[in-house]
Amino acid sequence: MSQILTLGLPSGSLMESTIDLFDKAGFSISTSKRSYRPSVDDPELGLRLLRAQEISRYVEHGYLDAGLTGRDWVAENASDVHEIIELPFSKATARPTRWVLVVPEASEIHSVKDLEGKRVATEAVGLTRRFFEKAGVNVEIEFSWGATEVKVPDLVDAIVDITETGSSLRANKLRIVETLMESFPVLIVNKQAWADPVKRAKLENIALLLKGALNARDLVGLKMNLPEANLKNLLEALPALRNPTVSPLAQSGWVAVETIIEEKVVREIIPRLKALGAEGIIEYPLNKVVY
Amino acid sequence: MSQILTLGLPSGSLMESTIDLFDKAGFSISTSKRSYRPSVDDPELGLRLLRAQEISRYVEHGYLDAGLTGRDWVAENASDVHEIIELPFSKATARPTRWVLVVPEASEIHSVKDLEGKRVATEAVGLTRRFFEKAGVNVEIEFSWGATEVKVPDLVDAIVDITETGSSLRANKLRIVETLMESFPVLIVNKQAWADPVKRAKLENIALLLKGALNARDLVGLKMNLPEANLKNLLEALPALRNPTVSPLAQSGWVAVETIIEEKVVREIIPRLKALGAEGIIEYPLNKVVY
Amino acid sequence: MSQILTLGLPSGSLMESTIDLFDKAGFSISTSKRSYRPSVDDPELGLRLLRAQEISRYVEHGYLDAGLTGRDWVAENASDVHEIIELPFSKATARPTRWVLVVPEASEIHSVKDLEGKRVATEAVGLTRRFFEKAGVNVEIEFSWGATEVKVPDLVDAIVDITETGSSLRANKLRIVETLMESFPVLIVNKQAWADPVKRAKLENIALLLKGALNARDLVGLKMNLPEANLKNLLEALPALRNPTVSPLAQSGWVAVETIIEEKVVREIIPRLKALGAEGIIEYPLNKVVY
Amino acid sequence: MSQILTLGLPSGSLMESTIDLFDKAGFSISTSKRSYRPSVDDPELGLRLLRAQEISRYVEHGYLDAGLTGRDWVAENASDVHEIIELPFSKATARPTRWVLVVPEASEIHSVKDLEGKRVATEAVGLTRRFFEKAGVNVEIEFSWGATEVKVPDLVDAIVDITETGSSLRANKLRIVETLMESFPVLIVNKQAWADPVKRAKLENIALLLKGALNARDLVGLKMNLPEANLKNLLEALPALRNPTVSPLAQSGWVAVETIIEEKVVREIIPRLKALGAEGIIEYPLNKVVY
Amino acid sequence: MSQILTLGLPSGSLMESTIDLFDKAGFSISTSKRSYRPSVDDPELGLRLLRAQEISRYVEHGYLDAGLTGRDWVAENASDVHEIIELPFSKATARPTRWVLVVPEASEIHSVKDLEGKRVATEAVGLTRRFFEKAGVNVEIEFSWGATEVKVPDLVDAIVDITETGSSLRANKLRIVETLMESFPVLIVNKQAWADPVKRAKLENIALLLKGALNARDLVGLKMNLPEANLKNLLEALPALRNPTVSPLAQSGWVAVETIIEEKVVREIIPRLKALGAEGIIEYPLNKVVY
Amino acid sequence: MSQILTLGLPSGSLMESTIDLFDKAGFSISTSKRSYRPSVDDPELGLRLLRAQEISRYVEHGYLDAGLTGRDWVAENASDVHEIIELPFSKATARPTRWVLVVPEASEIHSVKDLEGKRVATEAVGLTRRFFEKAGVNVEIEFSWGATEVKVPDLVDAIVDITETGSSLRANKLRIVETLMESFPVLIVNKQAWADPVKRAKLENIALLLKGALNARDLVGLKMNLPEANLKNLLEALPALRNPTVSPLAQSGWVAVETIIEEKVVREIIPRLKALGAEGIIEYPLNKVVY
Repeated sequence: MSQILTLGLPSGSLMESTIDLFDKAGFSISTSKRSYRPSVDDPELGLRLLRAQEISRYVEHGYLDAGLTGRDWVAENASDVHEIIELPFSKATARPTRWVLVVPEASEIHSVKDLEGKRVATEAVGLTRRFFEKAGVNVEIEFSWGATEVKVPDLVDAIVDITETGSSLRANKLRIVETLMESFPVLIVNKQAWADPVKRAKLENIALLLKGALNARDLVGLKMNLPEANLKNLLEALPALRNPTVSPLAQSGWVAVETIIEEKVVREIIPRLKALGAEGIIEYPLNKVVY
Repeated sequence: MSQILTLGLPSGSLMESTIDLFDKAGFSISTSKRSYRPSVDDPELGLRLLRAQEISRYVEHGYLDAGLTGRDWVAENASDVHEIIELPFSKATARPTRWVLVVPEASEIHSVKDLEGKRVATEAVGLTRRFFEKAGVNVEIEFSWGATEVKVPDLVDAIVDITETGSSLRANKLRIVETLMESFPVLIVNKQAWADPVKRAKLENIALLLKGALNARDLVGLKMNLPEANLKNLLEALPALRNPTVSPLAQSGWVAVETIIEEKVVREIIPRLKALGAEGIIEYPLNKVVY
Repeated sequence: MSQILTLGLPSGSLMESTIDLFDKAGFSISTSKRSYRPSVDDPELGLRLLRAQEISRYVEHGYLDAGLTGRDWVAENASDVHEIIELPFSKATARPTRWVLVVPEASEIHSVKDLEGKRVATEAVGLTRRFFEKAGVNVEIEFSWGATEVKVPDLVDAIVDITETGSSLRANKLRIVETLMESFPVLIVNKQAWADPVKRAKLENIALLLKGALNARDLVGLKMNLPEANLKNLLEALPALRNPTVSPLAQSGWVAVETIIEEKVVREIIPRLKALGAEGIIEYPLNKVVY
Repeated sequence: MSQILTLGLPSGSLMESTIDLFDKAGFSISTSKRSYRPSVDDPELGLRLLRAQEISRYVEHGYLDAGLTGRDWVAENASDVHEIIELPFSKATARPTRWVLVVPEASEIHSVKDLEGKRVATEAVGLTRRFFEKAGVNVEIEFSWGATEVKVPDLVDAIVDITETGSSLRANKLRIVETLMESFPVLIVNKQAWADPVKRAKLENIALLLKGALNARDLVGLKMNLPEANLKNLLEALPALRNPTVSPLAQSGWVAVETIIEEKVVREIIPRLKALGAEGIIEYPLNKVVY
Repeated sequence: MSQILTLGLPSGSLMESTIDLFDKAGFSISTSKRSYRPSVDDPELGLRLLRAQEISRYVEHGYLDAGLTGRDWVAENASDVHEIIELPFSKATARPTRWVLVVPEASEIHSVKDLEGKRVATEAVGLTRRFFEKAGVNVEIEFSWGATEVKVPDLVDAIVDITETGSSLRANKLRIVETLMESFPVLIVNKQAWADPVKRAKLENIALLLKGALNARDLVGLKMNLPEANLKNLLEALPALRNPTVSPLAQSGWVAVETIIEEKVVREIIPRLKALGAEGIIEYPLNKVVY
Repeated sequence: MSQILTLGLPSGSLMESTIDLFDKAGFSISTSKRSYRPSVDDPELGLRLLRAQEISRYVEHGYLDAGLTGRDWVAENASDVHEIIELPFSKATARPTRWVLVVPEASEIHSVKDLEGKRVATEAVGLTRRFFEKAGVNVEIEFSWGATEVKVPDLVDAIVDITETGSSLRANKLRIVETLMESFPVLIVNKQAWADPVKRAKLENIALLLKGALNARDLVGLKMNLPEANLKNLLEALPALRNPTVSPLAQSGWVAVETIIEEKVVREIIPRLKALGAEGIIEYPLNKVVY
């Protein structure tokens, strides 16, 4: 079985969680230090570790078939690629990366128009240029090599930067003027590879398994025994228990009810299950859930 | 939905395991350094991190509705509060914290009476005073700021201190004269809050979930297939398999048996199950068990 | 219940994974630093931590009843013991320890015969001597206290050493001339203990549980719902789903299918299950699997 | 030579810097974990590690001859002891520990009088009681087991606590109403020990060496060569070079100048020395300076 | 005394060694996490931490008076600034950063001309463009966000990258075609600031002290006693002892000889000094040496 | 300059302190993981890292010219080599490694004779065999791969093992019957290399420098100013100030006194110097002292 697909993965802050997600999906990736070609236990896959910023460029130009990167960097590079699936990694919040136009709290700039003739620093020059062009505002945009948030107001008038939470903004006494874009990680592919049925089938399977592993992070299994007479009552009262598997038990008049449920609602559901006559309620962890 | 309950949690050595237990129960608590008000993903709860020594005092006086602390500190403060549930954290041993009256191995003190007119150091002055008053023995009790075990016989004649295992005693060449108290963590509430039906319902749910998470630590799920003919035999031979869920299988004459069982007896049970004709025995981990 | 069995466990590089395996099998072992007699929560067992090199010697001479060590060291010591079970620890590769005769890449030695009259260093003098005697080649064998691989060609002409992967060989620019032995960890017992029915029963139970825990490392549970009509089709198409447990569901025409499957084939199976009409596919982790 | 002196050292946050200072003074102290009697390479000294809070109590009562603790805890315990020397540890700031009466920024309390009838939490109940008695203000004072700063305004109206810098106050949004006391570490001795000429001589030597080590932390040695003709000029221009050591050199007309000088002025001095004709200027570190 | 100078320091891999060098020079810099304005114990200095890549741009445009950065990034930005002093940080090797044009070992490219029409990735687009323009070779230059060395030959034909040692090149199986530039850290200033006598004097003092600290890293002090009669002999035999300080000693016929000497020759010198009759030879560390 | 000498250094517990000592002596050794040939900044030296147990064997047979190892392993191997210098590494105690014959505290064995016909485990089979042969006692000696101290009385009757302090013995409830040998690290050379004048000169220089570095660990420099009138007085009172360097100072009637002195007596000396009129006393660290 020979290699079918080259796939770019992000080497920076997303690398650990990407490898972890692939592991949960059933693909064991091992990287050595400075490794550009991590090995994976699937001979059909050829992996490349690259900066998230560059992956869409190399996918578009055909150096890679597909890649996992942020939707923001696809936009920054204006890459003409197909997006297969969105993969919201962050379990707790499931919040996207936000690109925002930011000024000092005390600045007199309150709208995009106020930036006419001013200087803006950003790591995403493309995104920023298109944003201001669309707004019809002339600004001087300079590329920032990093630590962008410290440059206002000393070196520039405003910045366009990522903010995941508001805490970093507050710590730097900054204020958001406008949001340019919200972005989740995405699995992308170029047009030729997507048109190839073998590559497409392989990518669809990978997407199915990644999604199955992502689903399982927020879900748990729930099992209980119930007097059959209470079943209808319980299902009406608890719509969160959608499509439970109901099995007859050897003990007459009782059924076993089993379902998959969001972990965060379990603490609401269990007391109500108990009140509705359920016994032997157990919750157990999951590796994958494919609907 | 507005806040219903303020709840004090212990900030010291119990903090990590308390947060871990709440997490297993379905409440995600996040603390920053020196945080007094940790955040929790339940808007009905207001948490406060305080020394275990002080929690019952603030619960009793109504500054907090409820709290999780050691039963020993409730007693030390002689706090008039209601105890909802006992929560034995320690998995391996499930042994309580013990407060003991301790002297050097070589000391001539062998009973409480021998301490008449002597000096005793302790972090629990209240507990200790009441103990000696009840025994009718006059001693000089001094508050110890910590490292109490090193003070005998150099600075005092005896100490009253915590001992979880005997190893620390042996290392310091100390001998136990008498045990004053044994203590587990408890969930406590003041009288007014317990009389309020909304607060009481919330606390009973929390207690149910904490207990469910604690249960799961010592339990595992066990599943097997069995010729139906052997079922009665097996259930008589293995009373540990109380209330198993028995389901018919598609293969005629066979049933699936599933139960929840203490992890520590599995090693006794599995060889016997196999001897009684069970096949495909599997053991799997649990998150919560609510009977 | 008094002690039945003394059991030697390896104190070196295998210690952590041995203790971990026993824990999964249901025996909780706790070691303090430099501990020779680790404690275990089974009063019938007396454990001893010893170098893997020495365990078979002490088992054979009756100082221990049984032990867990490498088959290589049993051979090195030429110990007359009974091997109960082989326990391949290493999850990812399941490859054995290999003892190889090694020379520098550039050496003129290409076969065992070429070593006539040369010098060989090794930690396994017994194994090596018997190997060369059988080959009818005279060599000077010297005991190496460690770091054997650095000694060629500076201090000796060849070495006999362990290699788990080829990477260490390549790093030291060495070449394998011949493999002397491949070895997995084994559970061994002396003849007298194996003849004692009480000790033998105890050891067979331990072997059953250790094997159950080892099995579970590579396996996962898989559950799904299926239209009953598709069941035959599915079982024919996917022989990996051997002996699934099939239960009727309350919803007419549907069955629940549950099976134990190798984790590494899940990524192939799930897309095909979905194509065959399975719904609500979940994968969950296992602690033990006893067939 | 038998033991002359028992000396209490603080076991908490001051321990590391105390041991470091003694090390620089020439006394090598080694502590094991939980050690109450650290060993020291001077058989005349018997050391005890105790909480800073308790040391003055045990010194006063004669359980220890002398001790190193904070002047604040001497005052808290109202201990009748002799203070031999003040030892300002903190190099950079040389600022004392401050005990302050603190309220929330937004509190209506602006003077000590405003606390009439209110509740105050503190670790220093003695200090606080005497302060309010002197001010003629009635307050309810409760002992705080720690993390005192989080208790206002939720649990008490004000606190009396330590503040080394203002940053912790700002982080907790607190405001200082008044300073009760400023405190440096001090070396203390009881009256009887101070009256004993052998103990007193020993303590005076220790004090001299500790002071010598403290001095050296801010000073460096400075050496240079100079044309003898420029010497008068240089000494007039740089009064910081007080009492330099001037030695004749073999090269006629040149002298060697060597002095001890505050480290923080060196960067000003060196450029000027060079301008005045000095050559081969060197700076070197010092361990002790005894004037 | 008010602020005289704003000074940019590199925030990346050079930060630690820069702060260390300033510390040895007498300026104590303290940085908190993400700090853009580190504090320094000299009120005349205002520091800014910025990427080395950007510092010369901000110095040239007057946002900063001066800065410490690599000479390579001054060239990349083609910044019109004055270079005050070169500061070779690396003690052991004192080798410069090298920017090299690199291809795979097996590539058919052997000279710059061979790159006509090819693709080159680099972090220094300016340097690279000017290099190829000067060579009269047309190439497509793309900006690389990092990990440039892994991109050949997969994604580009050649790269222009930094190499401090050859080991990284060999590890990636790369070959140098040509060196574009060698670069040391430099202290730079803009034209206006250099024309201001107060700023210039301040910068010259800083340069003197930084150079003094750098000098001391390779030197030690050496002192010994010598019979006066042997002095001439010794000085002729050991020219490394240039300009020794010779002082008369109280003991007639003996002199003290003291000198500053390169650390790396001391091990050669000491045996010879002893052979020449020197006694009590000592070596001591230095913090600064200003000639 | 080509290589003169191959030198074996110990790779085990002595490695770090050996490299540290060579560093202080002026030889910078750098080791990578598993390195057999560490690099050193002296092209005349070829280093090899080997087990201390094996070094004397390879020196004796000429595979190495010289080596640093324990005198105990030279004896164990009965190697015929020349010992150049003894190097007592351990600063605090300067105590040698001791090989002792050890039995359980409760054993009935009290003299060597009592071991007739018993079993002894040891890592030093050669030393032990010769010891018992000399004593005329027959014992069965078995090679121990490590953790020898845990084997009595369970597996053998006595052990011969290293003890640096008595604490390990007490922890294992063991008792010393007799001391076989005391051992310090030594620098050894084989007979042919020692007869070669170039190798011998090189080794004598290395020995001189190693000894110089060892000397300096216990010594410091001491300098002070003194009224010339007090000089005679001071020198008579403080014989520890042997051979001080006395220089005239510019200030009439004063001299500078400088000397090298044992660090451990400084704290005694300084108070007395001050009492005798010394001013500006300083102590400074030393890297090497060669008498």
